[in-house]
Amino acid sequence: MEYFSGHISKLIEELSNLPGIGPKTAGRLAFHILDMPAEQVESLANALTDAKNNVKFCNKCYTLTDSEVCPICASKERDQKTIMVVETTRDMAAYENVGEYKGVYHVLHGAINPMLGIGQNDIRLKELFERLKDDVDEVIIATNSSVEGEATAMYISKVVKPIGIKVSRIASGVPVGGDLECVDNVTLLRALNGRVSI
Amino acid sequence: MEYFSGHISKLIEELSNLPGIGPKTAGRLAFHILDMPAEQVESLANALTDAKNNVKFCNKCYTLTDSEVCPICASKERDQKTIMVVETTRDMAAYENVGEYKGVYHVLHGAINPMLGIGQNDIRLKELFERLKDDVDEVIIATNSSVEGEATAMYISKVVKPIGIKVSRIASGVPVGGDLECVDNVTLLRALNGRVSI
Repeated sequence: MEYFSGHISKLIEELSNLPGIGPKTAGRLAFHILDMPAEQVESLANALTDAKNNVKFCNKCYTLTDSEVCPICASKERDQKTIMVVETTRDMAAYENVGEYKGVYHVLHGAINPMLGIGQNDIRLKELFERLKDDVDEVIIATNSSVEGEATAMYISKVVKPIGIKVSRIASGVPVGGDLECVDNVTLLRALNGRVSI
Repeated sequence: MEYFSGHISKLIEELSNLPGIGPKTAGRLAFHILDMPAEQVESLANALTDAKNNVKFCNKCYTLTDSEVCPICASKERDQKTIMVVETTRDMAAYENVGEYKGVYHVLHGAINPMLGIGQNDIRLKELFERLKDDVDEVIIATNSSVEGEATAMYISKVVKPIGIKVSRIASGVPVGGDLECVDNVTLLRALNGRVSI
């Protein structure tokens, strides 16, 4: 696209490296950015570098945070004896959006995946088991319902149960508001097997 | 979202100001950016500010460019006597992608739109008429087929025709490869009225 200025081409190229943004969307974004006030562009550019340079892992739960210990681990209002294990900071954010869970989290940053060569030492499992030396009542495993998430859940429960700490797994079943006929077979079977008396 | 670090929240907020990017996509992008190598984030941030600070209007055709005069206006291989009038730099890019047009452009940066208070003095029309004082053979109007684009085309032709310069409008009709039954009535009528003998 040599008819564009080099700076515009460069910007389009950089933007199209982002996930879900192809060359057309990148073009649309680039021209929108050129139309934005200079201070707003500056602010966006600063937000990018600031986030990259200042965000680190919480020393306790390994979520992404600005401080040594994240606000949830530092909070006196959260039950520090209940740990929910999630794969990513975004999964944690999903549960925080619900607003009902009052315990703390542990972010693994992945799941065991032998196909991709990700073993138990490549995610934050050691750090989780280290935390169990403190006074912990329950470990709630909220990894994804994928093969990798289930494998990780199994592994954690095998290690944690012998220590004598309660281990639970979030329920798997038909999503609320979901149409039964649209739900896959494995989920239908799980929902049946996991039925609760009413 | 106070459970996120302030820097992440800020980044998500900045990203969701971009067109077509909602809070969910912004979140996905933000976490992807945090996973990117620092130099890649730096490069994206620099591309943003570089484009904003260095891109200006071409002195002749008012497209966005790095230099005083854009490569197309400066090229000796382009027919400087044929001017295609487009609404935006992206419309120009669309025709440049085709690669067949050998004339030059004039970018209006908008179209006459009384509803939004955009009159003939708010887009680069004066600059277009100024260019016609040089030796010009033809003005090809390639504004959009919208009400505003058509109004702008009418206005330009009314001014340019009396000067004695040929004025043309790009053809309007059924898109190539389009299914006739999916085409709207106005387009069908235009295609009929604009039929050419074969």
